[in-house]
Amino acid sequence: MTHFNKLTPSHIAELKKLASEVITGSNIHEDYFHDELAGTPHPPEAVVRPRSTAEVSAVMKYAYNNNIPVTPRGQGTGLVGGSVSLYGGIMLDMTAMNKILEIDRENLTMTVEPGVLLMEIPPAIQSMGLFYPPDPGEKSASIGGNISTNAGGMRAVKYGVTRDYVRGLEVVLADGRVMELGGKIAKNSSGYNLLQLIVGSEGTLAVVTKAILKLIPLPPKSITLLVPFPSLAQAIGTVPAIVKSRTTPTAVEFMERAVILAAEEFLGRSFPDKSADAYLLLTFDGNSTEEIEKSYDEAARICLDNGALDVFISNTPERNEAIWKARGAFLEAIKSSTTEMDECDVVVPRKLIAEFITFSAALEERFGVRIRSFGHAGDGNLHIYILRDDLPREKWESTLQSVFDALYAKASSIGGEVSGEHGIGYVKRPFLKESRGSDQLELMAAVKQAFDPKGILNPGKVF
Amino acid sequence: MTHFNKLTPSHIAELKKLASEVITGSNIHEDYFHDELAGTPHPPEAVVRPRSTAEVSAVMKYAYNNNIPVTPRGQGTGLVGGSVSLYGGIMLDMTAMNKILEIDRENLTMTVEPGVLLMEIPPAIQSMGLFYPPDPGEKSASIGGNISTNAGGMRAVKYGVTRDYVRGLEVVLADGRVMELGGKIAKNSSGYNLLQLIVGSEGTLAVVTKAILKLIPLPPKSITLLVPFPSLAQAIGTVPAIVKSRTTPTAVEFMERAVILAAEEFLGRSFPDKSADAYLLLTFDGNSTEEIEKSYDEAARICLDNGALDVFISNTPERNEAIWKARGAFLEAIKSSTTEMDECDVVVPRKLIAEFITFSAALEERFGVRIRSFGHAGDGNLHIYILRDDLPREKWESTLQSVFDALYAKASSIGGEVSGEHGIGYVKRPFLKESRGSDQLELMAAVKQAFDPKGILNPGKVF
Repeated sequence: MTHFNKLTPSHIAELKKLASEVITGSNIHEDYFHDELAGTPHPPEAVVRPRSTAEVSAVMKYAYNNNIPVTPRGQGTGLVGGSVSLYGGIMLDMTAMNKILEIDRENLTMTVEPGVLLMEIPPAIQSMGLFYPPDPGEKSASIGGNISTNAGGMRAVKYGVTRDYVRGLEVVLADGRVMELGGKIAKNSSGYNLLQLIVGSEGTLAVVTKAILKLIPLPPKSITLLVPFPSLAQAIGTVPAIVKSRTTPTAVEFMERAVILAAEEFLGRSFPDKSADAYLLLTFDGNSTEEIEKSYDEAARICLDNGALDVFISNTPERNEAIWKARGAFLEAIKSSTTEMDECDVVVPRKLIAEFITFSAALEERFGVRIRSFGHAGDGNLHIYILRDDLPREKWESTLQSVFDALYAKASSIGGEVSGEHGIGYVKRPFLKESRGSDQLELMAAVKQAFDPKGILNPGKVF
Repeated sequence: MTHFNKLTPSHIAELKKLASEVITGSNIHEDYFHDELAGTPHPPEAVVRPRSTAEVSAVMKYAYNNNIPVTPRGQGTGLVGGSVSLYGGIMLDMTAMNKILEIDRENLTMTVEPGVLLMEIPPAIQSMGLFYPPDPGEKSASIGGNISTNAGGMRAVKYGVTRDYVRGLEVVLADGRVMELGGKIAKNSSGYNLLQLIVGSEGTLAVVTKAILKLIPLPPKSITLLVPFPSLAQAIGTVPAIVKSRTTPTAVEFMERAVILAAEEFLGRSFPDKSADAYLLLTFDGNSTEEIEKSYDEAARICLDNGALDVFISNTPERNEAIWKARGAFLEAIKSSTTEMDECDVVVPRKLIAEFITFSAALEERFGVRIRSFGHAGDGNLHIYILRDDLPREKWESTLQSVFDALYAKASSIGGEVSGEHGIGYVKRPFLKESRGSDQLELMAAVKQAFDPKGILNPGKVF
C-alpha cells in the first residue's frame, strides 16, 4: 500500500472543484479519526462530503488516477474500525446524501440515498402501512453503513438481515464508473450476483450511492414477552425449542441482570422486572391479536416447561418502550460503566448458543476481566464485551488478546463465524484469516482485485 | 477457449483411476447432448459420475492441470443450455452424489449432496414438521441445479428463492481445492459473501458438492383460491393490490385458458373450471384455518372488487392436487402442443406485469407466431413460450430472434431483467450483455478469472 500518494495542496484544490464540501487540516473533527469503539486515532488527510452520485464519481475517478486511498463512511457507528482511514487520504463522508428519493407503494420498495438514517425510515413509511424489517440496535446508523456491514439486528429471527432487503444498488466503482445493480424486481438469475457481493463488503468494492430497499406490509399488532429465568444457561437453553416450534417469534433476545442494571443506571429509569439472573425477551407480530395469541401462548408454555420463573406480557406501548429502550441502551450502558472495552460479535449454530455462553462466561474468572454479553439468541449471534476497568494498558492488551483468541477458537470449533453483523473492519482481520483460511482470503483478495485493481477503496479492511 | 485439450485415451485412462464411473464414446447417452429445451446437440467427450467430494476434487485437479473443460450437470432439466458441454471435454454428472446426509431438527437445517432431487425433500422432512419452501416447477430437478440457477418457483412471493435457503456450501474450485462456505449459522458478516456469489453462477465458478439448506417449521394449513377473470389484463392487474395488502399469499400464479386446455389434454384429466379467459391461482398457508381465513377472505374481496367472475376455494387435498397438477404440467403441455419452442423468463417490477403481458400478447399477431405464457405474477416473473408449430426453420429462427429482441428490450426499458430464475446458460448471453452492459459483464469476467484463471469450468456460459 506504499504506492498511495499523500494529498498535496494541488490535489485539494482539484477536489474542491469536484465536490461541494471538502474539509482539511485542523477543520477535520476528530470524530473522523475513529469509529464508535475508538482505538488508535487515524486522521484522514481530507474529508469530502459529496452531494450527488456525480460528485462521488468525479472524486473516485480523480482519486483512482492519482493513487489516493478513499475510505467511505456513514455515521461512524461501526465497532471494528471499518470506516477509519488507515492510510490517510480521502474520507468520503456520505452523510450529506441523505434523501429518501421514493416510496413505491405498488412495488413495495423505497429508494434512498446512503446517508438516510435507520431511525428515519419508520416515520417515513409507517403511516402508509409499510415496514422495513431490519432492526440493528444502533438506530442512528446510516443505511449505507448497514448495507456495508450487512447489519442484522433483532428481527432477523423472523425477517432476515439487511442483505435480504436490498433489491437494487447504484454504486460507484473505484475508478469512478457508475453501475446499477438489481432493481425493483423480486427475483433475479441474470448473471453473477454482484449486488449481494457488494452488500457486506465494508466499502472495499464500491461506494453505495443509492439503494432500493424491499418493504413489506406493516404487521399492525405486536406483543413482547419478558421471561425471567433462574440462570442464563436455562434461558439460552430454551431458545432452540422456541425456534423450532411454530410460534415464529420476530425477535428472541437474551439479557443478564448485570446488563439490565447498567442500562437502568445509564437511562435513569427502571426496568419492569429485575428479580431474576437472566431474561429472554421475545416479540411476536402479526395482523391481529388473535393471530399472535396462539404463538405467544405456546412460547410462554415452552419457557415455563424449561424452568422460566414467570412470563410478563407487555402489550402496551409504554411498557414495550420501557423494555426496548433498555435493550437499546445496553451497548452505551456497558461502555459508560468502564474505561475502555472491545467486543466480539460471533455467530454460532443456534443449538450451541448455550454452550458458547457458558464458555465465554467462564473466561471472566479464567482471565480476571469483566465480561458482559447480550444479543440475538434467536439467530445465534452474540455480542460479548470485554471491559478494561482499571487494568494497566499492557495487561489489558494481553488479556484482550487471550480472551479473543479463546472466543474465536471456540466459535470456529463449533461451526461459528467471526462476525454475525458488525463486520471485520481492520480489528478482526487476524481472526477472519484464522477462521476462513488462506484459500478463502486469497479468493476474496482476487475478487477485490477484480473490482479495484489499484486497491484504493478502503485499504487495509476485511483482509 | 482454443487452448482446451481434447481428451486422449491416456486422459481417459487417468480419469478412470480418479472417479468411480467414466462413460465414453457411443456409451454416452444422447440426453447428455442437450438440456430440456434441446437445441443443437453438444456431445461431451466423457461423462464422469463422481461418488464423493474427493473424486470431484481429483477430477477437477486433473482437468485443471490438463486444460480440459468441465461442465457440471444435475438432471439436465435446465432451459437455457447451462448444463451443455459447448467445448466437449468432461461432463461432470453429479446425480450419483444423491444422499441426504443429515436433518438437523435443532438448527433447522438439512445437509444434502447436490444430486438429491427437489421432489425427494418433502417426504424426508414433512413428517418431522419441517418445510423447505423453494418450489420450482420442475420437481425432478436436482438441488445442485436449483442452486446453480438460483431457482425461484411458486412460493417466492412469501418465502423467497433458493438463494434464501442456502446456508452453507461445500464446493470444489476449478483447480480441485475444496472449500467450505457459510454453515449452520443464521447471520454472517465475515468477509465477502462468496457463498451467495456461487449461488446462481451456473457452475462457472465452482462445483457444489454439498449444501446446508435452511428449513422452517411446516405450516400445517394451506388453502388455494382459483379466481376466474374475464381477461388476462384484469387478472394480472389485480396482483399489485393483493401483494400490497396484508394477506401475505404464499403463491400468486396466473394462467390463461389456452394453457389450461393444453394441460388438460396433456394430463387427460379435467381442471375444476375453465369457463373464463384467465385465472389467478392463490395459496395461503399458516398455522390454523382461522389464521389464514382472514387473509383469503380479504384476497377474495380484492379480486371481486377488481372484476373477478367468481372465487373458488379449494381446501381438500384432492381438489388442490387437481389444480396444482395442471399448473405443474404447463411446460410439458405447451411443449407437447408444438414442434419446437423457446422461452423467455423475464422478471419485471410487479406493478408493471400487466403492461408487460399486454405487450407480449400483442407480439403474437405482430410476428405471426403462437405465444403462450404463465408464471409467477406475485413476483413479476413471467414464463413466455414462443411456439414454432409449422414455421419453416429459417422463418422460425428470424421470428424467434425478433420476438426475443422485442421482449427483452421491453423488459429492460421498464427496469426488468433477462432471467428471474432459469439463468443465462449460453442461449441468453446476448440478452444479458444487452441488458447489463459491458462494464458489468467485464466485472463478472474478472470475478470468473479470480475463481477459475484457466476458464475450464463450464466455459461459454453466462457471458
